[in-house]
Amino acid sequence: MTNEKVEWRIQVEDGPWKRAGISCSMWSFISSLYSKLCKFVKKAWEIGVNDPRKFIHCLKVGIALTAVSLFYYLKPLYDGVGRNAMWAVMTVIVVFEYTAGATIYKSVNRIFGTTLAGLLAFGVHWVASKAGDQWEPVIVGASLFLLASATTFSRFIPTIKARFDYGALIFILTFSLVSVSGYRVDELFNLAQQRISTIIIGTSLCIIVSTAVLPVWAGLELHVLVTGNLDKLANSLQGCAAQYFEAQAASESNKNLMGYKCALNSKATEESLANLARWEPAHGRFNFRHPWKQYLKIGATMRSCASCIDALIGCINSENKTSDDIMKIMSRTSIKVGDNSANVLRELASTIKKMKKSNKLDILVIEMNNAALELQNLLKSYPNTQKNAKDGDAKLEIPIIELIQVVTVVSLLSEIVARVEDIVKCVEELSDLAKFKPEMSKCDKTKQHSTDNKISPDQQNDEETVIKTLQMV
Amino acid sequence: MTNEKVEWRIQVEDGPWKRAGISCSMWSFISSLYSKLCKFVKKAWEIGVNDPRKFIHCLKVGIALTAVSLFYYLKPLYDGVGRNAMWAVMTVIVVFEYTAGATIYKSVNRIFGTTLAGLLAFGVHWVASKAGDQWEPVIVGASLFLLASATTFSRFIPTIKARFDYGALIFILTFSLVSVSGYRVDELFNLAQQRISTIIIGTSLCIIVSTAVLPVWAGLELHVLVTGNLDKLANSLQGCAAQYFEAQAASESNKNLMGYKCALNSKATEESLANLARWEPAHGRFNFRHPWKQYLKIGATMRSCASCIDALIGCINSENKTSDDIMKIMSRTSIKVGDNSANVLRELASTIKKMKKSNKLDILVIEMNNAALELQNLLKSYPNTQKNAKDGDAKLEIPIIELIQVVTVVSLLSEIVARVEDIVKCVEELSDLAKFKPEMSKCDKTKQHSTDNKISPDQQNDEETVIKTLQMV
Repeated sequence: MTNEKVEWRIQVEDGPWKRAGISCSMWSFISSLYSKLCKFVKKAWEIGVNDPRKFIHCLKVGIALTAVSLFYYLKPLYDGVGRNAMWAVMTVIVVFEYTAGATIYKSVNRIFGTTLAGLLAFGVHWVASKAGDQWEPVIVGASLFLLASATTFSRFIPTIKARFDYGALIFILTFSLVSVSGYRVDELFNLAQQRISTIIIGTSLCIIVSTAVLPVWAGLELHVLVTGNLDKLANSLQGCAAQYFEAQAASESNKNLMGYKCALNSKATEESLANLARWEPAHGRFNFRHPWKQYLKIGATMRSCASCIDALIGCINSENKTSDDIMKIMSRTSIKVGDNSANVLRELASTIKKMKKSNKLDILVIEMNNAALELQNLLKSYPNTQKNAKDGDAKLEIPIIELIQVVTVVSLLSEIVARVEDIVKCVEELSDLAKFKPEMSKCDKTKQHSTDNKISPDQQNDEETVIKTLQMV
Repeated sequence: MTNEKVEWRIQVEDGPWKRAGISCSMWSFISSLYSKLCKFVKKAWEIGVNDPRKFIHCLKVGIALTAVSLFYYLKPLYDGVGRNAMWAVMTVIVVFEYTAGATIYKSVNRIFGTTLAGLLAFGVHWVASKAGDQWEPVIVGASLFLLASATTFSRFIPTIKARFDYGALIFILTFSLVSVSGYRVDELFNLAQQRISTIIIGTSLCIIVSTAVLPVWAGLELHVLVTGNLDKLANSLQGCAAQYFEAQAASESNKNLMGYKCALNSKATEESLANLARWEPAHGRFNFRHPWKQYLKIGATMRSCASCIDALIGCINSENKTSDDIMKIMSRTSIKVGDNSANVLRELASTIKKMKKSNKLDILVIEMNNAALELQNLLKSYPNTQKNAKDGDAKLEIPIIELIQVVTVVSLLSEIVARVEDIVKCVEELSDLAKFKPEMSKCDKTKQHSTDNKISPDQQNDEETVIKTLQMV
């Protein structure tokens, strides 16, 4: 049956279609377009399925927009704000962002930018109107030119760019609209008042929807991103050492091995999230002034560790192979260094996740350093090992070429251990700044089981969703 | 005289100010505020002085804005477009960006987003008006909800995010404004037409000012950024090898040494510039479809090389010091590897700068590989060197601890050489994609001196300005 169908289609393609050349190419064009479209839709659908919060965000935008449109549809509300209701709709579209932090940042900037510019434009207009008809356009024009240039310049200044970029844009926008329209419209005060009130309506609606309905907190995203990257770094490090010394199948653990690249590439994301997180109110276990900037420092030390792992992986894949004898001698301790530093990284991740000072961390760091020292000593004592071998059997000197790779791996592992210590320092600074409480030991825990500082099931759910999502991406 | 003055001030501070405690603290508050303000202004001024194009950009914004305000001030123009002139002003403020590419991207997105949304809203409005009074708000509301959600979702799709993010925003904005206001205003067609014409006026003005008056091309910025990073990488690499083996004063060349960090950190900038550059028309020596994406690949290989340099610098600063004897043996060849790979990187930078296929590159790559091979051989032959030494004088075996660092440095240098070759491949791909012409040898040059494909003095000036600026930053 299937065969018949296929044959039928082929016959048709060979028959009538070939005769009508244009229709044929048209047909193939449409079918290729269709298959492209299908692929595109499938890809888009996968984006949403991998992170359902993106679907939810779209629904939230729809809800906010439909809600604000009510100002137009409902007669009494319309009479209140009149034609300016348009500004509420506009505000919702422009201000509503994916994370709550971004929405609040834009809302606050929009309100203050509009108000400040409105007042200033009003002042300029007043001065201009006193100056007489001849000077009025000159004063208005000159002030517009000067203020627009100055504000545009202020957007190049890093601190302003990070916090008030949108506000500066809105400032120029409002100032020019008010001062320009002020030249024609005499009911300036009324206009400004109505516009500000519609903007406040729009922004409040946005802030309410984005913080109350399944909010996406920039702070939480940053928190999960950084802890996730710590875990990925740990996996890479452990996998790296194990793969080299145990000659594991590379393909199997390749995905784990490449995790460090996430840490290397997330600088821009971390910075934008940290910038937005500072606008967010206290949420979950984070206070209003949670030290988000410290996450950036942790990110920087992680990247420096990740570049070392990158170099290590490069050296492992290089051509100089090490003799099996030395590998055997070094193997156990090297894997131990890899495991121990991975343990430290995982403990750091769990410290940040739990927001409790770890009581195992010190021991783990000592273990890691001891393992690194042991590895160095093993390498130092290598001539002795060699000598013993010489006494025992006929082996003379191992050519240095067979040492190159193992020495490099050991040396890079020591460097990685040193850089992991930098991460430890940064995380400890974070735990001081954010006033993490000390973790209770197990016996304490049973005593104080259900009293102190517990994560509510809801909060835990939220965080688990974020974590799952980021793992899928 | 100075002494007296100081004393007088101290007396005053001790005297009347202390009695009035509030004034005193107020005074110190104001003075600290004043000094902060001074610092801020100084910093801002320096930003502008380091890159005068930022000052120029502000003036350009001022000019464009004042020009578009003429629609309000001049009576005949005002009568043409009416109250909708506001949209021209708004367009200029929102669309005018620092680089020409960004301005064109936003302009095109704004025009197409507005037109498409306007047509669609018009269609929906027509359907709704045919459906009767009862169904009209339902149809308008539902279409608004659906389209807003779908368009918001499309902004999560990477390809759309990179090219049409702003267009999608404008699409939602216009669709809701038109469909919502359509419910009240009956002169919808006129409104849409006027609005689109004002937007076209605004965007054309922006595009003209940003491409004609001292334009800042995103493509040129990217080009200069990538070639600059190649040079910085070369300096770092050369400095690194030289500092280690010649024990140069670290502080002196520290700035040069840290240049590789620029390459490590410019991923986000490169990506945004490449995204914007594709909107730019042919300018200078770049065609409309110049392969900007290839610059991103070059950037990625540069970062991988920079990671290795980062690890190398870490190892150089580690505690294991190498004995002077080995250093002496390895020194010359290692520095040669550093110099040769730096030469390759510089030749790559000059290839991209001149946009001519280099005729020295192959030789330089061979020289670099030979030097790397020589270094490896030197290390391999080390036992022999050692034996000779043993025969000559009393030295027995050099403990392996003294070898660790030098072996690591050599091994990382080989890895860096391998990664430099990746950069070479990427640059060669670029030269194929962008159809670089082969460079003329010197004798050819004298023949064809003033005929073919010369850079005009103007173009050269432009590029020199960009290069100088980026060097200062």
